[in-house]
Amino acid sequence: MIDVNGVKVGGEQLVVMAGPCSVESLDQLREAAQAVKAGGAHFLRGGAFKPRTSPYDFQGLAEEGLKLLRQVADENDLRVVTEIVDKDDIELVGKYADVYQVGARNMQNFQLLKALGKVKKPVMLKRGLSATISEWLNAAEYIAAGGNENIIFCERGIRTYETYTRNTLDLSAVAAIKELSHLPIIVDPSHGTGRWQMVQPMARAAVAAGADGLIIEVHPHPEVALSDGDQSLTPKNFNLLMSDLGKIAEVMGRKI
Amino acid sequence: MIDVNGVKVGGEQLVVMAGPCSVESLDQLREAAQAVKAGGAHFLRGGAFKPRTSPYDFQGLAEEGLKLLRQVADENDLRVVTEIVDKDDIELVGKYADVYQVGARNMQNFQLLKALGKVKKPVMLKRGLSATISEWLNAAEYIAAGGNENIIFCERGIRTYETYTRNTLDLSAVAAIKELSHLPIIVDPSHGTGRWQMVQPMARAAVAAGADGLIIEVHPHPEVALSDGDQSLTPKNFNLLMSDLGKIAEVMGRKI
Amino acid sequence: MIDVNGVKVGGEQLVVMAGPCSVESLDQLREAAQAVKAGGAHFLRGGAFKPRTSPYDFQGLAEEGLKLLRQVADENDLRVVTEIVDKDDIELVGKYADVYQVGARNMQNFQLLKALGKVKKPVMLKRGLSATISEWLNAAEYIAAGGNENIIFCERGIRTYETYTRNTLDLSAVAAIKELSHLPIIVDPSHGTGRWQMVQPMARAAVAAGADGLIIEVHPHPEVALSDGDQSLTPKNFNLLMSDLGKIAEVMGRKI
Amino acid sequence: MIDVNGVKVGGEQLVVMAGPCSVESLDQLREAAQAVKAGGAHFLRGGAFKPRTSPYDFQGLAEEGLKLLRQVADENDLRVVTEIVDKDDIELVGKYADVYQVGARNMQNFQLLKALGKVKKPVMLKRGLSATISEWLNAAEYIAAGGNENIIFCERGIRTYETYTRNTLDLSAVAAIKELSHLPIIVDPSHGTGRWQMVQPMARAAVAAGADGLIIEVHPHPEVALSDGDQSLTPKNFNLLMSDLGKIAEVMGRKI
Repeated sequence: MIDVNGVKVGGEQLVVMAGPCSVESLDQLREAAQAVKAGGAHFLRGGAFKPRTSPYDFQGLAEEGLKLLRQVADENDLRVVTEIVDKDDIELVGKYADVYQVGARNMQNFQLLKALGKVKKPVMLKRGLSATISEWLNAAEYIAAGGNENIIFCERGIRTYETYTRNTLDLSAVAAIKELSHLPIIVDPSHGTGRWQMVQPMARAAVAAGADGLIIEVHPHPEVALSDGDQSLTPKNFNLLMSDLGKIAEVMGRKI
Repeated sequence: MIDVNGVKVGGEQLVVMAGPCSVESLDQLREAAQAVKAGGAHFLRGGAFKPRTSPYDFQGLAEEGLKLLRQVADENDLRVVTEIVDKDDIELVGKYADVYQVGARNMQNFQLLKALGKVKKPVMLKRGLSATISEWLNAAEYIAAGGNENIIFCERGIRTYETYTRNTLDLSAVAAIKELSHLPIIVDPSHGTGRWQMVQPMARAAVAAGADGLIIEVHPHPEVALSDGDQSLTPKNFNLLMSDLGKIAEVMGRKI
Repeated sequence: MIDVNGVKVGGEQLVVMAGPCSVESLDQLREAAQAVKAGGAHFLRGGAFKPRTSPYDFQGLAEEGLKLLRQVADENDLRVVTEIVDKDDIELVGKYADVYQVGARNMQNFQLLKALGKVKKPVMLKRGLSATISEWLNAAEYIAAGGNENIIFCERGIRTYETYTRNTLDLSAVAAIKELSHLPIIVDPSHGTGRWQMVQPMARAAVAAGADGLIIEVHPHPEVALSDGDQSLTPKNFNLLMSDLGKIAEVMGRKI
Repeated sequence: MIDVNGVKVGGEQLVVMAGPCSVESLDQLREAAQAVKAGGAHFLRGGAFKPRTSPYDFQGLAEEGLKLLRQVADENDLRVVTEIVDKDDIELVGKYADVYQVGARNMQNFQLLKALGKVKKPVMLKRGLSATISEWLNAAEYIAAGGNENIIFCERGIRTYETYTRNTLDLSAVAAIKELSHLPIIVDPSHGTGRWQMVQPMARAAVAAGADGLIIEVHPHPEVALSDGDQSLTPKNFNLLMSDLGKIAEVMGRKI
């Protein structure tokens, strides 16, 4: 069980992290934060450093984005989870975030993992695009070997031949991690499917499979999002999702 | 909604098909049938014609197996679902079975599909090992084009690079089929994972994702099963699973 | 080494099978046959029974197509290889063809394989869309177990996440089959890549990897082909390919 | 065409990089270097920083390994190519190496790529484990955007469901890169297959497909190698390979 300033990950409480893919502006982020707080989320998510396939795509607001995340999270009593892509930014990101997120592309960036092993702040380790369960556990070991055992796994879909979905969300990874590790695991149905219509059923399924939480993309206006609009829920749909999850959580002996 | 001698697939009722991978003997099958009936299953499953990777592996009891299926299903008021691998067997299998199962390897055996289009009896069409959602829908179209629209999809895991599980169970296929088709879909967490320990969490997840039912391998003595022992539940674990599913079903507005 | 009416597959001679994806008409087929003969091919290929993803796509000319294949092959002293999709057609197809082709979708259609085990005519067994080397060898065993050991393997690309090519041509399968089996293997760079521009480099590579032959789509007018126009060579490009292959063949101690 | 201290990559000359997976000791490296030089290689390869799946596996000799690489390369008039895993090591590695290698796991480590964009020394960019051609080209763009256009692509196999080989060597990537880019591409049949018996046929095939060079693992005593022994050639087999390649190169209008 990992304690993030009072929010326990891996216990009875199902933890919900929500917010936009990228931090775009104060207005956008504040609107998103108020919406996810109203829906019942515990964390605000949002990218300030965006690792994009092309160098010519929007790369994020960097420190300015981090500041906005901290500010609106504090306004709404939310924790902050945000991606780190460079070990030189550990101190900088740590100043604003409660949880470091390591993205799929960096799951085997061992230099970054080793550096995160030397801090105490929790790390959310996303599964690599085509990482096996065994490689994922070993990647966590790179962090743990340095002394930081505050690791949260995050299943976000794997790469397969299927093109209807952006990735193939592998919920059996939840059961596998529960068998092989004592660490918590959360699920990202937004990246896992790439289609907002699928987020609700797959979020329910993730909780029923035993996940300890969810990370979900919510954008006040998905149609104008700078990234990942297709997979972002509106605040209204996020609310519907949360009330749905509450019922599944109860069956699983958990609360939300 | 498909009516199988009074059991409706695709309606409020969650349908559970259970039984051994292969029909091995009267004793084995009767013990399995009594156990799955006691647990609440609606269908007895079991293979009489087994398409095995090697020609030297056990190939099934053929008509003798079909007779046993019908006999013990009738003793326990269960419906019979069993695999058909040859269009010449349509009449023979139809004499004993309530639902024809088309296995993953035959999903694009278009001669078999066309022949099944000419009967009225329901067909359960498993997804091919590496079939896209679109190819799967088109395969169903081969059956429907002949006039038989009583088709049940069955997600049973796709082939990926991951070796911890036998296949990767793609529960997003449930949501996809619900978006793209009016036909029911059930899930096979036994083949989908290949590990009995994962069957219960993935069965729960399937129901939460919106599946209309489940097909589950149950063997009275998995350790001596002629095939798929590793993924078969004992009767006791099947009971636990069913009581678990009841609660999820209720949340989903369904009964079991 | 398999003797197909005087053409030996698996010996010093590199065997080239060429022709259109589908038999469309006498004119189209005759033009293709003359072109591939002129280029140096030994077999005419062409589909009379086409297993298509959708039931509403062109399904082939059936027996009429077989007759055309035999006729124009005989006019040009070519052997005929054509796909069989139904065990009931063994006699019919055998009347016209020199080699039965089992397509990727039917690699584990064990009823078809068993039936082909009972004839003497050679069978070209394409690798399934996501078949392992081991499953492929076992599929051949289904034919051989019946007494027909005249089996030619055909690597035609496997399904992966890559979308630039239609499939991923796995030339290491050539080396693997050479290690594990005494049977010949040929390569299909047309289906293996799905792009005619890649056929020439991949055909060369196949021969350099040790393949015993090639099967190549050639269409007199690819832009109006009823199927697979994108991956078909024009007669002119087929000629260029053949002269290129001659040089690689020589280095490999083979002739073409 | 990229000039590496007089060795041109991407021209008439086929470039061969060879050596052990890891630098283990002066004796091992010297023996390997003499062998690969005798065989006709132009570059010495060898890892001083080893990104290993588990943190408890051998991680390389670091700077000591770099020094040995430079020393024995100079003794044998070879260029040095070696992996860089950390942008902080650019100066250090650059002191000893002629070409920076970015490994498959770091293909989308954009911070490392951006940093390498600011130097002039050539970079060999391996394809990610499950990177598409398009993602690979975009990764190169991260380097080029910074001003360093001395980029060599390296195909080293992609991750698929097949387990007979370590990866699936995708030689169609050679043809694809030749279509889409003006940059050179070399092939790594050692990692691409994971089996030394397959290195020779796949190396021939790579050259026939149009590759500009090869990178091959050679170890004086593969049976005691600290990593990748199964895929390493002995000096004797490397010699056989090189004489084989010479003949294919000639057909391709190149020299070796």
